[in-house]
Formats: sequence, structure tokens, C-alpha cells
Amino acid sequence: MQKAKLALKAHADHQTVVNLSSTVTVGGSDLLIVGGPCSVESQAQMEAVASRLRVAPIQAIRGGVYKPRTSPYDFQGMGLDGLEILAGVRDRYGLPVITEVMAISQIEAIATHADVLQVGSRNMQNFDLLKAVGQVDKPVLLKRGLAATLEEFVMAAEYILSHGNPNVILCERGIRSFDPFTRNVLDLGAVVALKQITHLPVVVDPSHAAGKRELVANLAKAAIASGADGVMVECHPEPEESVSDARQTLSLEAMAELVQELGRIANAVDRTIPQTGVMPQLSWV
Amino acid sequence: MQKAKLALKAHADHQTVVNLSSTVTVGGSDLLIVGGPCSVESQAQMEAVASRLRVAPIQAIRGGVYKPRTSPYDFQGMGLDGLEILAGVRDRYGLPVITEVMAISQIEAIATHADVLQVGSRNMQNFDLLKAVGQVDKPVLLKRGLAATLEEFVMAAEYILSHGNPNVILCERGIRSFDPFTRNVLDLGAVVALKQITHLPVVVDPSHAAGKRELVANLAKAAIASGADGVMVECHPEPEESVSDARQTLSLEAMAELVQELGRIANAVDRTIPQTGVMPQLSWV
Amino acid sequence: MQKAKLALKAHADHQTVVNLSSTVTVGGSDLLIVGGPCSVESQAQMEAVASRLRVAPIQAIRGGVYKPRTSPYDFQGMGLDGLEILAGVRDRYGLPVITEVMAISQIEAIATHADVLQVGSRNMQNFDLLKAVGQVDKPVLLKRGLAATLEEFVMAAEYILSHGNPNVILCERGIRSFDPFTRNVLDLGAVVALKQITHLPVVVDPSHAAGKRELVANLAKAAIASGADGVMVECHPEPEESVSDARQTLSLEAMAELVQELGRIANAVDRTIPQTGVMPQLSWV
Amino acid sequence: MQKAKLALKAHADHQTVVNLSSTVTVGGSDLLIVGGPCSVESQAQMEAVASRLRVAPIQAIRGGVYKPRTSPYDFQGMGLDGLEILAGVRDRYGLPVITEVMAISQIEAIATHADVLQVGSRNMQNFDLLKAVGQVDKPVLLKRGLAATLEEFVMAAEYILSHGNPNVILCERGIRSFDPFTRNVLDLGAVVALKQITHLPVVVDPSHAAGKRELVANLAKAAIASGADGVMVECHPEPEESVSDARQTLSLEAMAELVQELGRIANAVDRTIPQTGVMPQLSWV
Repeated sequence: MQKAKLALKAHADHQTVVNLSSTVTVGGSDLLIVGGPCSVESQAQMEAVASRLRVAPIQAIRGGVYKPRTSPYDFQGMGLDGLEILAGVRDRYGLPVITEVMAISQIEAIATHADVLQVGSRNMQNFDLLKAVGQVDKPVLLKRGLAATLEEFVMAAEYILSHGNPNVILCERGIRSFDPFTRNVLDLGAVVALKQITHLPVVVDPSHAAGKRELVANLAKAAIASGADGVMVECHPEPEESVSDARQTLSLEAMAELVQELGRIANAVDRTIPQTGVMPQLSWV
Repeated sequence: MQKAKLALKAHADHQTVVNLSSTVTVGGSDLLIVGGPCSVESQAQMEAVASRLRVAPIQAIRGGVYKPRTSPYDFQGMGLDGLEILAGVRDRYGLPVITEVMAISQIEAIATHADVLQVGSRNMQNFDLLKAVGQVDKPVLLKRGLAATLEEFVMAAEYILSHGNPNVILCERGIRSFDPFTRNVLDLGAVVALKQITHLPVVVDPSHAAGKRELVANLAKAAIASGADGVMVECHPEPEESVSDARQTLSLEAMAELVQELGRIANAVDRTIPQTGVMPQLSWV
Repeated sequence: MQKAKLALKAHADHQTVVNLSSTVTVGGSDLLIVGGPCSVESQAQMEAVASRLRVAPIQAIRGGVYKPRTSPYDFQGMGLDGLEILAGVRDRYGLPVITEVMAISQIEAIATHADVLQVGSRNMQNFDLLKAVGQVDKPVLLKRGLAATLEEFVMAAEYILSHGNPNVILCERGIRSFDPFTRNVLDLGAVVALKQITHLPVVVDPSHAAGKRELVANLAKAAIASGADGVMVECHPEPEESVSDARQTLSLEAMAELVQELGRIANAVDRTIPQTGVMPQLSWV
Repeated sequence: MQKAKLALKAHADHQTVVNLSSTVTVGGSDLLIVGGPCSVESQAQMEAVASRLRVAPIQAIRGGVYKPRTSPYDFQGMGLDGLEILAGVRDRYGLPVITEVMAISQIEAIATHADVLQVGSRNMQNFDLLKAVGQVDKPVLLKRGLAATLEEFVMAAEYILSHGNPNVILCERGIRSFDPFTRNVLDLGAVVALKQITHLPVVVDPSHAAGKRELVANLAKAAIASGADGVMVECHPEPEESVSDARQTLSLEAMAELVQELGRIANAVDRTIPQTGVMPQLSWV
């Protein structure tokens, strides 16, 4: 790690707090709970998520509009139409939105419509993309590569930091391993280590690690207990109908229950899950 | 898993509670916190552990007397002398003791002196040893192999169960992976899955997974939050002087603090850390 | 693999032969031996490689001018100046050149100066880059990701094929594993499988897998014996002075010896290492 | 590796040649080709293997009679009856036999009936078994553990050597990894490294690595090209009827063809496949 000049802690209490909006932060005592579907599919879907989970409460919404799919023949995301749905939901409910950027050509549109640019696992060492999001005035959520060492992960963040963007959130989401039972192995040891090594916020995506919805809640609780600054969980009004990653997606009810359970763990580690968001304005107001 | 006839849950609430002693159990609402050194080194060492941690409280003591070492030239354990130390401490402090059995020839002595026989990772598929401990009237703590699938782990337990011993405790202790930063990767997804698949108690050894003491506490907390029935943590009166695994060993003070923190997590998941053990009898009584 | 429409063999003898130049092919009975440094460093360096190895004989030259480096502070490659050096050497010695493309913005310059565009391991699932090189009229050498399954690897090729470029060469280069002794684990089982599953040529990079130069030659021989259509080996006039990957780089003499040894293996599996390239034109001609 | 006193090369040409019988060796210029079924099933089965493959020629026969099976309910091997079949075939055809020892209690019978004691992957760090076979006057074929580092593998051999048995043969058989396509990943980089580090013979089992019979031949060829001292291949008179590992088992015809192909590779690396064994004596002679 010796070459990382910007990502490492300068002293034991060194901790960056990233602002996702005027009221939502990550890295401080407030936890960040993010919910939402793998893919944005429709206005109604995202309204359902936001209206139900705003009061759970979650603090931010996720949803992919540009999708990195193993097969070129699979659904590649709604693109710009999806971005407009995300922006609309954000404006109505006051919840910042996180969405993935796969290419430099998408940055401008995403930075205009969304609050956090996610760089996915497959692009963790797409260095030109890292340099480009390093020049954007929005936070970047950087997911760990499928087989990235902690050093590679920290140095990928360093690419973004060294190009001018100080607001990087690290996300552990499971690594490749030999057991077919879970999709990936959630590496909470990495979370504990990253919190000691870097001053950047560290969140956890238990959904992609688990690959099975019945494993998600307890992994999310473990993540908060391990010291993570938040979790990002896939949920959907009709999980079985999700166009992607259905098997690992929670229902909105299960997600709301999970937030309550996470509140108890948060309390046990001196963290809080803040109420945020706003009541949607009625159209005639 | 379809071939496992005895290890799988028969119904959702099916849960085995294993008795380590007349007062200590694992698998019910009481958690099992085990502390102790990698290797039993002396009477004084084990007295220090038991007297300080009995009130933490921990519920059982661990310590190896037969040591599986990578090199034939490294310390191989105190053997029978160590067993006698363990038995003495158990009798004086009322804490059941756990120690590793590496060979069939050691079973009789260990079963006589200790309360739980540990089968280590390297022997998880030493099938003749599994069959032999399957015929012993003491609980077996079975550690997951370094690269064992969940199916292999459950089927290893099945070997023990099918030879007549119903008291098997599974222990996740980290799996081999590519990152040199941690010693192994603690697979809490496996813990969540095993708790859903089997009725056997599942505990976690965060020390061997972390390989670095500063990572242990938060991994232990994560383990309890994930639903584990207990944790087994390496600690030593003088960690740096430990004859083996010094780098991952907690001091007794750090261990006592950890137990307090675990109590908060336990409360958040509706579990308890019971007071147990007894004041040592004074010698003139 | 069922979704791959273009990459899979239609029948057992289905085999694509890719032309790197008017005289150099890969996928037929002629093997493709590629040599050259990790990074293009100077005109003199590349002249030394080409003049010594043209007669070895190797059939193509490699050299990176845009370098994907873990650290943003490490040498990032010569860029356009390096491309001009490559093109000059290609023209003088008649050896096609292979170089890595890291970003869509580099494609035009690389396609103009080089004969084969390499997509590196870190970009194997940079889907926008795959789509873009799918529209280029030059062959693409696609390296397997550090932890890519065979299905993901084949589907990454499918992205390129489905966007119009039929000339894809697959390259196995080692996968991440737990043993620190070698840098990666060369997966020749993947080579044997890919040759049976797809009709695309498959070559092997033993240098990145080995990470140590003393392991490279025997791994290259194994690759040819396993049925690979070629190997790509890092070599340098002064290996210890290489600006990157020095530890795994062969000297030109060692490389020339290796080509001779590979010729014997080639003969044993009914393949040939063709003489190719031309004498450099003298400047007064 | 610094602690290995006996397994490491003392100088570059240091090479141990192990005698399997008065005519069969491994570690010298003669290669060792071992064929036979996963499990000994009957006298007729083993006669068919020996009579067909003696002239292929193979130099030794394998067959398990004590089987380490994941499930306690699967076939556990013929035991002593199988040993007698092996001994009979050895005596009639002059081919040394290799069979697995799983427990100290089996050593005496196996050492009496067989020529080489195999210690399987699951027992690579069953240290008491290693110490026990270290006191036997027969060669030991030690298979690499499923996730063993090279250091652990060499130190396991050191256990045997340091207990008095100098005749250890190392066997690479594939390591655990993430890709479900092959059963394991054959690590030929380990073979190349072990041949440089140790003076012990190194052979390769491509069958367990491949897991699919159509991948076995080319991996065996790669193994010999990489510098291995031999290969051990599963084959059976009726592969589909094999009681274990059917999917990876070659027919006797395929095995005989493979030996011919291996002869060509052997020639390319200056090794030989010796004719050995004897015509079976007719019973009335």
C-alpha cells in the first residue's frame, strides 16, 4: 500500500464523511442504508420502492440503467429513460440515487441525473474510467473487483482521488471462491481491514455476495457489526419478476423489516440509522 | 446435500443444543464464547486465562496440546502433560475445555481429560478419525477444511453423526483465498447458510481467519450478528510470547473487552452470554 | 454457454484461422509465437528484439504503450510515441505487432499503427470497450480476466463477435489463486476446454502466470503440448532493466532457445513454427 | 521453505530416483505412466487393465481399495479383498501397484500387498499418518492437498522424509478454484517450481483435475512437456460402469492411445517411456 498517498489514514481518527445530498452522509456515525432494484424497469417500480422504503427508513435508492451483463443478448438497461425515472423519484422523495456508470460516454448524463456514480466490480481496474470519474463533482461508489486484493482496491480508489475527486466510497461485494452454494464469498475481514487502512467510507453489498435472498439479512447485520458504514441491498416490489438478479432480491416488506433489525445492530455499535427523505409533494401543491 | 440423512434440518425450527457441561450449552439462546491460547504452554498460563476470563464471562476454554504444524521441526504440543493442565483448570474453574485430536491414538486420553474434542481443518476429511470420534461420548467441534465446500463440511459431520455421536458443533474458521492481507477469508455466508441447512450448532473462529489481532474483535461481532451460536477466540496472557499464532492472539484484557462488546451484539439479536464457571476452590477446603 | 451464438463450434472440425498479416496466421497448423517486452521503452529496445528474434523465429512482436498499472503513480506507457516505434519495427522486419488498448479513445490510433488489439485481463468485462473493438477491422486478442469463468470468457468474446468483428483470439494468462509462489495459476485445463468449446484460436501467456522467469519455458512447452495455438512470452534485451514485470521477463537468448524447444514440442503434436518476417530493408535501398 | 532440511535440492542436479520395483523407477530419464481404475472392483477388471495396458506400455497400476468418499453412505472400497487382487495382478504381470492408505491401521496390510502407498489429498496434512508412512520401507506417493501451498506440500513431504523414508513421490492433482467447468485447476506451474525446488520425483494426476475424460489426454501431454516425471491416469475397461469417478475415466483403448502420444512428447523433452512388466505366467507352467 506504500504508494497510496491519498487513500490511507494519516492518523487513527482520520475519517472522510461523504455527502450524498444536503441531508445524507456516509462515513460518520449515521449509517447509509441503500435499497432498490438491480435494474430500473419502470416509473411505477421505482415509485413503489421509494414510497415504501422512505419510511423504513432507507437513506438512498439504487437502480441500474446501464447494466454490465455477461451476455450481449441480455437486457442492457433502460439507459437515459431510466436516468429520468431515477431523477424524478429523487426529486419527489428526497432520496439521493446511486447508479452505475460503465463508460466515459455515460458520465455526463449520469452526473446530471444521479447523486452517486457507481463503478462496478468488472470496471474496478478500468483505469480510464477511474480517471474520468476522478474529474466529476459527484461522489463515486467503487465496488471491489471479483478477485481484487485490498491493495489493488485501495490503489483503484487512489486513481480517482489523485484525479481530483475526494469523495470515494468503497464497497465490498463478495469475492470469487470455490463453493457453489453462495454466489460469492462476502469478505468482512476486508471491511475491517479497509476501515483501519483508509479514511474512506466502506459499505457492503450483501446481495451479490449471497446470491440467495434468504442469506441477505443476516449478512447485512454482520456487515454493520463488522464496522461497515452502510449496506446496499437489492429489493423489488415483485422480486420474482425482477429482470435481473431475481434470486437474490428482497421484497419491500422484507427490506423494511431488515432496516428495523439493522437499527438494533447499529445501536449495539454506537451508530444510527437516520430518518431522511421527504413526503412526496402532491402535484396540485 | 441430498445424501445427508442426519445433519439436515427436518423442519425450520429443528435445532440441536449440545451440552459441553452441566451448565454450558451451545445451539440454544445462550451463546458460547470460548477463549484460550493456541497452545497450552504451562499451568500458570492456563490459570491466568481461566481466572481472568471466567468473569468476562467466557463459557469454555480452549488450548492445543497436540498441534498440527506445517513443519515437523516446529513445537508439536505438550501432549499428555498439557491434557492434565487442561483438566486441572477445568476442575478448578468449572469451565469446560476444548482441545484438538489429531489421531485415533489420542482419543482415549483426550476424551478422559477434556470436554470437547476438536477435529481441525486439516483433518476435516480424515474419515477414519471422523468415524472414531463418532464413537466417543463427548461432543466434537468440527472445523471446516481450508477449501471445503459446504456440502463436504456437512457430509464430514454426517460421518460423525452416522457413527453414533449426535453432538457435533460446526466451526467456520476462514477459507483459502488470494489476498495476502488476511490469513484466510472468514466466510460468514457459510454460517448463515449452515444455520438454515443443518440443525447443528455453528460457531466461528475469527482468529485463524484474520491472522492479525486487530481484525479479530470486529469479525467476532460480525459472526454473532450473522447468527452464529458462538465464537472461539485465541487469547494469551502475553500474546507476543505465544509459541504459536502470536500475531493473531488477543491479550486477556482485549478479550475481556471483546466479550462486553459481544454482549451488546448478542442483545441485538436476542441472544445472551451467560455467566458460568465457579470460583476456584481454595486448596485448604 | 447456451447463449453464445457465434463463439461456439458448430461441429467438431469448426476452427477459425485469424490472419495477423499476409503471412502470419493463428488457429491453423502453424503456431503463433509472440515475443517482446512488457512495455515499449525505446526504438533501440524494439529493434534489438525484432532483429534477434525474427530468426528465432517468432511470428509477431508484442509491446505495451498504454499500460494498465495498479498504481496511478507508476509508468503509464509511452503512448503515441510508442505506437510509432511499433509501426516502424513492423514495417522494417515484417513482423505484425500486438499492443493493448485500454480505452475507446485509443482505438483509432492503435488500429492505425498495430496489427492486433489486445484487450487486457482487467478489461475483459469492460463491455463498452468490447463493443467498440467489435467494430474494428483488426483482430482482437482477448485476455481472460483474473477470475473469469470459461463462460464469462466466451461471452466476452461473443460481445466482440456480435458487434461485427469475427477475428478474436482468446488468451489464457493465469488465474488468481492462494499460493504466493507463482504470480497466478496457469489454467491449461481451460485451454483444452476452450479448444473443444469454441472455434476461436487460443493462445497462452505463460509469463504473467509464472511471475518468475525460470518457470516460463516449461510452462510455454506445456501450453503447446496442451493444444494451444501459440504462446506470447515477455522478453527484453536487458530483462533486469525492464520498466515493468522485470522478474518474469526472459532475455532474448533465453527466448531464442525457448523457440527451439517449442519446435520440438510442436513437432510432437503435429504443429509447425513457421519462418516469417523479412530482412530489414537497408536505408539506402 | 527454509525449514525443509531434507526435501530441498542441495544443488541444481540433485535428483532422487525412486524404485517402485526392480525394473520400474521414477525421477530419472524414464517416465512413469500409471494407469488403472479409481476403485478396484473385481479380479476381472484388474486383469483387463493389466493385460491391455502392460503393452501400451504403462509401468505401474493404480486402484483404490480404501476410498475416501465425501459421503459415509458411498462405496468405501473393497478393503483387504481388493489388496489381494492387486497383489495377484502385480505378481502375474510384473507391474508394481499403487494404492491409497487412509489410516495407520491399514499400513501393514497395504505395505505387504502393494508397492507404493498413496497418501491422498485429504490426508496431505494428516501428520500422524505422514509420520507413520515415514517409517515404512515402501515408497510413498503424496498427493497435494486441495488448497495446499507449495510450502505446505514440501513440508508434508518433509514429515515423511524426517521419519526415515527417503522415497517420496510428489503428485500434483489440481487445486480448488472458482470455475465449475473443470473439477479442479491443474497447476503445472507448481510442477515446474517443485522440480526446481526439490529433488523428489514429481508426477501429475490429470484425471482428478480435469473431471471430464475429454480433457485428460491433452493435460497429460502438457504435464510431460512441463517436466513432470510421470502421469497417473484413471482408466477402466468400461468407464461408464466405474463405481466412482466415471465421468473422468478413460477407456483402455483411449489410455493406450494416450501412451503413444505421450511417447512423442517424451521424445521432445528427452525422456523415455520404458517397456516393462512381463507376460503373465500360464497357470500350468
